[in-house]
Amino acid sequence: MATRARLLRGVGNGRCSHVSSLVAPAACRGLPKATARLASACRSSALPTRCLGSRSFSGTSASRAAKLTTDSYPGLTRDSRFSQLTPEHVAYFKQLLGQDPAVVDGINADAAADIEPFNEDWMHKYKGQCRLVLKPGSTEEVSKILRYCNEKMLAVVPQGGNTGLVGGSIPVFDEIVISMGRMNTIHSFDEMSGSLVLDAGCILEVADQHVAERGYIFPLDLGAKGSCHVGGNVSTNAGGLRLLRYGSLHGSVLGMEAVLPDGTVMNDMCTLRKNNTGYDLKQLFIGAEGTLGIITKLVVQCAQRSPAVNVALFGIETYEKAQRAFREAKLQLSEILSAFELMDGTSQRLVHQVRGGTKPLENDYPFYCLIETSGSNSEHDYEKLEKFLEDVMSNEVIADGVVAQDATQIKTLWSWREGITECIGHWGGTYKYDVSIPLSEMYLIVHDVKARLSEAGLLGETDDHPVVDVLGYGHMGDSNLHLNIAVRRYDKEVEKVLEPYVYEWIEKRQGSISAEHGLGLAKKNYIGYSRNETMIGLMKQIKTLYDPNGIMNPYKYI
Amino acid sequence: MATRARLLRGVGNGRCSHVSSLVAPAACRGLPKATARLASACRSSALPTRCLGSRSFSGTSASRAAKLTTDSYPGLTRDSRFSQLTPEHVAYFKQLLGQDPAVVDGINADAAADIEPFNEDWMHKYKGQCRLVLKPGSTEEVSKILRYCNEKMLAVVPQGGNTGLVGGSIPVFDEIVISMGRMNTIHSFDEMSGSLVLDAGCILEVADQHVAERGYIFPLDLGAKGSCHVGGNVSTNAGGLRLLRYGSLHGSVLGMEAVLPDGTVMNDMCTLRKNNTGYDLKQLFIGAEGTLGIITKLVVQCAQRSPAVNVALFGIETYEKAQRAFREAKLQLSEILSAFELMDGTSQRLVHQVRGGTKPLENDYPFYCLIETSGSNSEHDYEKLEKFLEDVMSNEVIADGVVAQDATQIKTLWSWREGITECIGHWGGTYKYDVSIPLSEMYLIVHDVKARLSEAGLLGETDDHPVVDVLGYGHMGDSNLHLNIAVRRYDKEVEKVLEPYVYEWIEKRQGSISAEHGLGLAKKNYIGYSRNETMIGLMKQIKTLYDPNGIMNPYKYI
Repeated sequence: MATRARLLRGVGNGRCSHVSSLVAPAACRGLPKATARLASACRSSALPTRCLGSRSFSGTSASRAAKLTTDSYPGLTRDSRFSQLTPEHVAYFKQLLGQDPAVVDGINADAAADIEPFNEDWMHKYKGQCRLVLKPGSTEEVSKILRYCNEKMLAVVPQGGNTGLVGGSIPVFDEIVISMGRMNTIHSFDEMSGSLVLDAGCILEVADQHVAERGYIFPLDLGAKGSCHVGGNVSTNAGGLRLLRYGSLHGSVLGMEAVLPDGTVMNDMCTLRKNNTGYDLKQLFIGAEGTLGIITKLVVQCAQRSPAVNVALFGIETYEKAQRAFREAKLQLSEILSAFELMDGTSQRLVHQVRGGTKPLENDYPFYCLIETSGSNSEHDYEKLEKFLEDVMSNEVIADGVVAQDATQIKTLWSWREGITECIGHWGGTYKYDVSIPLSEMYLIVHDVKARLSEAGLLGETDDHPVVDVLGYGHMGDSNLHLNIAVRRYDKEVEKVLEPYVYEWIEKRQGSISAEHGLGLAKKNYIGYSRNETMIGLMKQIKTLYDPNGIMNPYKYI
Repeated sequence: MATRARLLRGVGNGRCSHVSSLVAPAACRGLPKATARLASACRSSALPTRCLGSRSFSGTSASRAAKLTTDSYPGLTRDSRFSQLTPEHVAYFKQLLGQDPAVVDGINADAAADIEPFNEDWMHKYKGQCRLVLKPGSTEEVSKILRYCNEKMLAVVPQGGNTGLVGGSIPVFDEIVISMGRMNTIHSFDEMSGSLVLDAGCILEVADQHVAERGYIFPLDLGAKGSCHVGGNVSTNAGGLRLLRYGSLHGSVLGMEAVLPDGTVMNDMCTLRKNNTGYDLKQLFIGAEGTLGIITKLVVQCAQRSPAVNVALFGIETYEKAQRAFREAKLQLSEILSAFELMDGTSQRLVHQVRGGTKPLENDYPFYCLIETSGSNSEHDYEKLEKFLEDVMSNEVIADGVVAQDATQIKTLWSWREGITECIGHWGGTYKYDVSIPLSEMYLIVHDVKARLSEAGLLGETDDHPVVDVLGYGHMGDSNLHLNIAVRRYDKEVEKVLEPYVYEWIEKRQGSISAEHGLGLAKKNYIGYSRNETMIGLMKQIKTLYDPNGIMNPYKYI
């Protein structure tokens, strides 16, 4: 009864003492030196701040120091069909695009350093050997670049904000990077319909701010919003935090302009929600990770922005009760529910262990859920939330909980979800899997993996055990789990226990080995666990149809 | 002030005298004999009851009497590559599927009559010459049928509930009909995630009822729900009444099983919302109208069902004010808005003229809007609606309005929207266009078409004028207008004034000549008004890739 009273006081009286006394969310104080850089990067608007924990482990030991991808993946060999870059090629592109900043010429020794940011991902996991970066300023330029590359058999890698998690936008060998940042115009926004027309190189947050000023919300939100490009979001079919509410990009992308490898411009810039005139070809490019062509423009259906936002965090005794809480939230909060996130007790213990501060709830629980509501009337939403909380408390579905009372508290509660990634790397490293599993069995994989690692004698509290702990968290509303294994060091024995076990486990449940981050280089060899041979064969047909020379983002995807 | 007081009494006092005194919605009394059959068909649960008005005029004079499609479209010639059906073929299928009811053998004189329902659409506009109907009971049977047909060069037409509006599911010559009605099992429903697994031959209403009992709603609703198949809905990318709320099928279809023309089974039955492992090939089949293969199973993401539903109807003075009302509804009703329909004054006048009864509002207005809200808390929703109505009344955005107080009144108000189609055919016929146009100009086409017909001397009150009137209505929330021309008789002069003018008008505004009904046979020749040559060429590539022999639903689509 004590916890119930506390929760209800928090909800009903307009103040929540638990939340208000929490540490400032951005502090990350006490964070050891080893993780300080990453933590600092997490707070920079120029780098992803959420979902860091979700990049997958690819089977090699990752390192903070940049290492050539060809060294990490020694099995890869350069496709001999591709031409070597020559000064004549570079001269063509300079004549086409002009000089700096449209062409970064890595052959020229003076510009060699300038090319490095395009050769490496922000996690320093992938490092390519590209010697030429092109920054087209128009669709016509993209078309001319691709036509030329296709004729000359020059391989290319489209690159947006370079915030990917699976190495999809980083060259492997000497592919030419086509960086889309200069194509960043917002062309129009229809305030009546919510239809936004913009270049692929627009930064997600800029696009969202543009429509926010007009009462709308971009139908996608994710941690990297400050630097990722909308073209990259669509190319990777990004999921993010509010897919539960606004649905997938397959539903919200209304129109697209893309350039095919032979330079053909596919103009399908419909700004209307309904257009049943033939095959919806643009859908193939949503999630194609730049292997079929380059997206240059988009039309996106934006939703009405909700002025009222509430966030609550609960402690829950069992995974079964977490599922009941989710079901009840869908039932009672229905149209205002905008996020339902799960964090296990291990994840929250580790976050607290690393950064200290006051925990949102007094006691520890095996599971925590963070829910967010977004609606048009704050009183109505609060009343629904209060009723929901009363119900789940009185039915003992949840054991304790707090509700944020203002924007700062909202940020603080979110930080217990978003801070997981930066904190669990503290001991040395993390093996990460971003997977979809039917909700009824979703968390079971954490138990099973933990049991296997324990049985193998690899998990323990002392330094002779490589594994610190196994944890799970993620977008419960989308059946999307981030399975993470916090380690003191990367270790071949651990890897043997993990793979292919994890993939086989997911395959048995008809889950997905890549829920939202795509295949890139990291998952290329594992697609067979989520797709059958027929599907993969049909996909290869499409690749051959659109890109017969294979110049688009080679060595990756399927 | 008088109208405002009446509206607010209707809203605030829990009763609305205007609505409660309306005629029973299903009555259609006074309907002249000429339209009685159609009106009767409209009320049968076995036939479409909504959106009847949206089938397009194809350039030929339609007739209530069934006429061979080859007579209506004399330009069509049978593709000589296709084999003629022989008794050996029939024997193969009988051996494969068994006898009745799986094979309807029109070659056999005894069964000739049984085949007719498959040869004709419900509007009696299209009539094929098929002599064999196959009703497979499993994916394996579909696969064997298609493999055999592909080898023997036998053309086929997939048929679901046969409720299409553009002739897409009716044979033109002697194509074999593959009727999916026997594959109608609902395999599973996950009450936690809302993911529904079912056969393509399930009837939409049955599927919706199945999930309704579990607190969910199928994310598609349309008038033909009592007879249309979910496989047909997905094949035609049906839009319907609540796309505004639940989005497009491209977002809500999570998984699919389809059989390709060569018998290959494409199994992509993912039940999870996030699965980024390769090209999303199933998207190509959404809206392909059976030209790439036959959808056999689906996984559909269902939404939480809203227990509270409200419906209101307003009178509005100008189209500009209708747009303001829509903008305000999105702003204030936001997450609970589930439909926003527009009807012009002409449409409502004609409905009243045909079926009589008490009008919802005392005065006549140039425009009417019907809005529906769906939410989890009726008090909250009603309060939001009341506030919205007060605002739009006091700002003189709307001139008058009523709110339904119970389910009967909801049905009655909807009948003023849904009754349009049956009533406007009263004078003899209707030329119909289902189009998408940017909202700012959407209604302008009605004025322009009316002016053209008047100038040509074709529109008038007397019998020597073929045109009775021009009207517009539709899904304003989706920029989807149904432009209808009520006529006393089909007339070549009228057709010359309408086409290609209407298509060119839409092309200039980058609209769509087929918003939600697809291309079928009716729009095949007009796709160029909404898609450029490059897009059409790319579509034909896809068709050739999947169906090199062209056996799937020939003579239609692209």
